[in-house]
Amino acid sequence: MRQSQLFTKTRREAPSDEVSKNAQLLIRAGYVHKEMAGVYSYLPLGRRVLTKIENIIRAEMDKIGGQELRMATLHPSEPWKQTGAWDGVDVLFKIQSRTEKEYALGQSEEEIVTPIAQQYAHSYKDLPIALYQIGQKYRDELRAKSGIMRGREFGMKDMYSFHTTQDDFDRYYEIVKEAYFKIYKRCNLDAKATEASGGSFSEKISYEFMVLTDAGEDDILYCDKCDYCANVEVAKNAEGDACPKCGQTKLQKAKAVEAGNVFDLGQKYPKAFGFTYKAEDGSDHYPIVGCYGMGTTRLMGTIVEVFADAKGIVWPEEVAPFRVHLIEITSDNADVHTEAAELYRELTSAGVEVLWDDRDARAGEKFADSDLIGIPLRIVVSEKTLAAGKFECVERVSGKVEHKSLSELIGRLTS
Amino acid sequence: MRQSQLFTKTRREAPSDEVSKNAQLLIRAGYVHKEMAGVYSYLPLGRRVLTKIENIIRAEMDKIGGQELRMATLHPSEPWKQTGAWDGVDVLFKIQSRTEKEYALGQSEEEIVTPIAQQYAHSYKDLPIALYQIGQKYRDELRAKSGIMRGREFGMKDMYSFHTTQDDFDRYYEIVKEAYFKIYKRCNLDAKATEASGGSFSEKISYEFMVLTDAGEDDILYCDKCDYCANVEVAKNAEGDACPKCGQTKLQKAKAVEAGNVFDLGQKYPKAFGFTYKAEDGSDHYPIVGCYGMGTTRLMGTIVEVFADAKGIVWPEEVAPFRVHLIEITSDNADVHTEAAELYRELTSAGVEVLWDDRDARAGEKFADSDLIGIPLRIVVSEKTLAAGKFECVERVSGKVEHKSLSELIGRLTS
Repeated sequence: MRQSQLFTKTRREAPSDEVSKNAQLLIRAGYVHKEMAGVYSYLPLGRRVLTKIENIIRAEMDKIGGQELRMATLHPSEPWKQTGAWDGVDVLFKIQSRTEKEYALGQSEEEIVTPIAQQYAHSYKDLPIALYQIGQKYRDELRAKSGIMRGREFGMKDMYSFHTTQDDFDRYYEIVKEAYFKIYKRCNLDAKATEASGGSFSEKISYEFMVLTDAGEDDILYCDKCDYCANVEVAKNAEGDACPKCGQTKLQKAKAVEAGNVFDLGQKYPKAFGFTYKAEDGSDHYPIVGCYGMGTTRLMGTIVEVFADAKGIVWPEEVAPFRVHLIEITSDNADVHTEAAELYRELTSAGVEVLWDDRDARAGEKFADSDLIGIPLRIVVSEKTLAAGKFECVERVSGKVEHKSLSELIGRLTS
Repeated sequence: MRQSQLFTKTRREAPSDEVSKNAQLLIRAGYVHKEMAGVYSYLPLGRRVLTKIENIIRAEMDKIGGQELRMATLHPSEPWKQTGAWDGVDVLFKIQSRTEKEYALGQSEEEIVTPIAQQYAHSYKDLPIALYQIGQKYRDELRAKSGIMRGREFGMKDMYSFHTTQDDFDRYYEIVKEAYFKIYKRCNLDAKATEASGGSFSEKISYEFMVLTDAGEDDILYCDKCDYCANVEVAKNAEGDACPKCGQTKLQKAKAVEAGNVFDLGQKYPKAFGFTYKAEDGSDHYPIVGCYGMGTTRLMGTIVEVFADAKGIVWPEEVAPFRVHLIEITSDNADVHTEAAELYRELTSAGVEVLWDDRDARAGEKFADSDLIGIPLRIVVSEKTLAAGKFECVERVSGKVEHKSLSELIGRLTS
């Protein structure tokens, strides 16, 4: 895309009421627009990042047999009343319609997905099933905070699985855990799985996926010799204790963001809806249900928090809005523009996503904007690179500079 | 995908309260699940169709310079109060939060997109811009009807364009009109553009895109010799009059579905928000705004209404959930299964989307399900086709039967 066509521009200052690093940078770079506390619109650059994150999650959920659907977000009140959540969930948005009907806005979708599964799963042969969607969620938070990381409207992948036995849920949880770790890895994030309390969702155990960052709202204890990790709230140990799992070293404490969670919901929802299946011997049983959340907008905010530096955002390659930021240094020498146009054509036809800064602006402004926007590889075309016969390539994350010919570039970017 | 893995099943009967053909068939075939009047969840097959429709629209909007974003759907009340729509739009859902704040649910997004454009467009050099999104809309309809075609929650593509002059809007409207016709054509729909009243949105003229079908809620007058078409509500002529445009024949009357619309919003919204741009001579002006809607779920319902036959749904190729329905006729001869598995592998690795009916069920049941689900090409693998050395291929739309070898099939499906 030609940057002269992009309708957003960078800004020097974020709104003064915006204290989180992720929202400040995302607003300044033109990724998001704040509508009110806890609600953001995603502008073209932000929409691109969000779509990449969603596609990573979608691919990994599909690989483990997740079937994608799109459930309603405007819910009838009846299923919420049936499970007791109409009065029990304080963040539930309720709506009174003109027709005197009451509706809820989806804050999680157990009340919708359980009757859907019930419609089709009647026998043990129909189980297990895993259903997921990627879409908007709404929560009436008393206080929205942390920029795009805790909102009143936010993007989320939510998956629900239905099993005949606890063992089968446990088996599937391990599969989902591996898929979650793959997603974090593709986002360059280092995540740890903890055990934590079930919260209001469930009496049973739940699991959280934590990413270490100072912007985190949670405190965790972890061991750097093994995979032990626990939320401080439920941990039986304290900082400095020997690791209760491997014993090799002392536990460390850190701030972390919850970037995913799993709830073992047991049979609560099937019981509320009278959802049973026939076992092989003809007897009726309630399925065991698991719920697997991952906030897409929260993941985007977490990535900004973890990788940003003093100059701006630093996107990992797989989630960046573009792979290459092509900077054309405005020049009286028409060959510079011709060369930039040619490189843009070559790269895009090789399938590389390029943001081409073809604006009539000073080099310093273009570089500062490029640092703020945070695309992984910057390629500079100028009179100097023209004379040298090679393009200047700068890695955003390291600042490392290399000089490459067109064929070397294509080779690197399409390998 | 293996059909034995698909969690939905077909049903003989639709819910008795569902009178529209589109919802009856979509529910019976397992595409959608009704949550309440006017609100449906989209199950895996339905989600696939919706994604295809969205991708067609996205491609055509991108081609005409539309920049995709995702605006909030939970809106602060302030911009709605600023334009007068808080009290003026009867279908606006309003929410009272725990924090005593009032919110609206997006039923259209002029109140959100105008301040976004205002943030970035300051000069005539920044215009025109065209911003679009694909997502959920909410309307507090007194009576939801026509299945997925008029809902309280529905999917929509909405685009908004900002121009310096009326001429520039008129120029861009013609471009969007062509893009809309391309979209309908890719969905196999024959659409006509009418002039209609502006409704509550605008005092100015609006345009509607009408698709002829008996399920339509509108009556139109059209000429089959030229492109004249008008909504009966605003037409100055009557059925049987000579065409006012070409005069060659008499006007005909028909039922039609509004499958898209355009509103020339003039300067209403920029005036409400004090959004001006600097012209070349330094003077300040309000931009002219256009709004271009196209319901994605409504388009899906329209396609069902237009093409369905007595046996079930008939999807046009570009929007079908799968390209091929591979029917394996259950047999004691293990070679039938091996051959079906091999064909599935070959087709999917050639990039063809295949739903493989590998269930242990009678042939008659499989064919009836296949007719109901409506995938364009059915390929049958049975002892008979094994003996013949060719696969039986049946076109859903025509019932035409052909016999083809693997290489002939691959050739046809990947050309």
